[in-house]
Amino acid sequence: MQLFYSKQYNDKILIFDKEETRHCKVLRKSPGDILAVIDGMGYLMKCRLNAYKGEETNLEILESTLMSRQRNYRLHLYIAPTKQNDRIEWMLEKAVELGLDEITFIAGEHSERVRLNMNRLEKIAISAIKQSVQYYLPIINPITELKDITPSGTVLLAHCRADMPRKGISEVLHNINVKDVSVLIGPEGDFSVDEIGNLISKGAVPVSLGNTRLRTETAGVYISALMNAIL
Amino acid sequence: MQLFYSKQYNDKILIFDKEETRHCKVLRKSPGDILAVIDGMGYLMKCRLNAYKGEETNLEILESTLMSRQRNYRLHLYIAPTKQNDRIEWMLEKAVELGLDEITFIAGEHSERVRLNMNRLEKIAISAIKQSVQYYLPIINPITELKDITPSGTVLLAHCRADMPRKGISEVLHNINVKDVSVLIGPEGDFSVDEIGNLISKGAVPVSLGNTRLRTETAGVYISALMNAIL
Repeated sequence: MQLFYSKQYNDKILIFDKEETRHCKVLRKSPGDILAVIDGMGYLMKCRLNAYKGEETNLEILESTLMSRQRNYRLHLYIAPTKQNDRIEWMLEKAVELGLDEITFIAGEHSERVRLNMNRLEKIAISAIKQSVQYYLPIINPITELKDITPSGTVLLAHCRADMPRKGISEVLHNINVKDVSVLIGPEGDFSVDEIGNLISKGAVPVSLGNTRLRTETAGVYISALMNAIL
Repeated sequence: MQLFYSKQYNDKILIFDKEETRHCKVLRKSPGDILAVIDGMGYLMKCRLNAYKGEETNLEILESTLMSRQRNYRLHLYIAPTKQNDRIEWMLEKAVELGLDEITFIAGEHSERVRLNMNRLEKIAISAIKQSVQYYLPIINPITELKDITPSGTVLLAHCRADMPRKGISEVLHNINVKDVSVLIGPEGDFSVDEIGNLISKGAVPVSLGNTRLRTETAGVYISALMNAIL
């Protein structure tokens, strides 16, 4: 199913912006064609293309259905951005494809200070839900200091320090009744000993991710894949 | 642990090629420094840097240990290359990080015909095992016609056709005693009905990959993540 995306609509009329209009033209859609449009907030709308108008497109909404959520769990990923932007971007694309509800970029003691292009990240997430046929756009939060986050549900802390306690993540996911999970993934230099101690004292469960040393961005995708498969 | 890579060695002497020499210089290694070197075939060697010689580096092997395999399963991924090379490349990088023994690129009825740069793919795999601290370099096979492959062990066929039979992959992985697994992932246009029928008649188990529609390259990473977590 080919999905289009727009948040600009009222009861009857829906508008495609410049980008979606271009996309629509590339796919050779003409007035009269029926398209499936999502708004990223759960609605799937059957629309008829009325007319291209300059850089926009006018459509008429024929039917609108509120789709149920496709997952029976909620995953919030807290992840330190990598130095290279393309690695963050593909991590986001893949995590969204696999299923993710919210992502917060975190900064801690060992973090690289990077500037995120939030607009570009939102576009990547929109493209990923269209591609993978999902109806809810994940929430993407800008960089937040680790000390200021307030993760909900079961909080899992992924770290690579073999000298500090941790359990295998798949064991943890199998043994607890997880419906609302927050997973924290550190920067390339990992969380500091203080940060780990502090998070554990607040109730975070320390976990290890599999049997090889994963890059930060691979860890984000790994978690999303596991939740998708196990829950 | 910082790993270096070389296949050029005898009992006593090991040589870094141009690329590894550059890498070594970037890390400011000097004569006398002790380095950990892998050969991708299981050996971890403790070496002393003797001298930079033009574009190469001479090292003396002090100790050599054959490391055991880090996984108790064997995964062979058969995957159709995507149109965009960068998607194949990151799939390979991530699948290798997560753990993979062999990968064969396949061509079938709906495949995009692409040209693979096998040298570049090998470099990516070498870099990924160094990064993730593994000792065995996966075998990477060039594009092979689907009809000519001879997958071993339990053969899982991932397809997206809701009108044809298939089971959830995590259920399958939990219920069979899988130690040697071959997983087949189709191109962007999926396997054809004939291809699926033919593979099933040869014993392949049709599976679905999770609850969203995954891109080809995401499917490859998803399988590697699952095997890593479950087995």
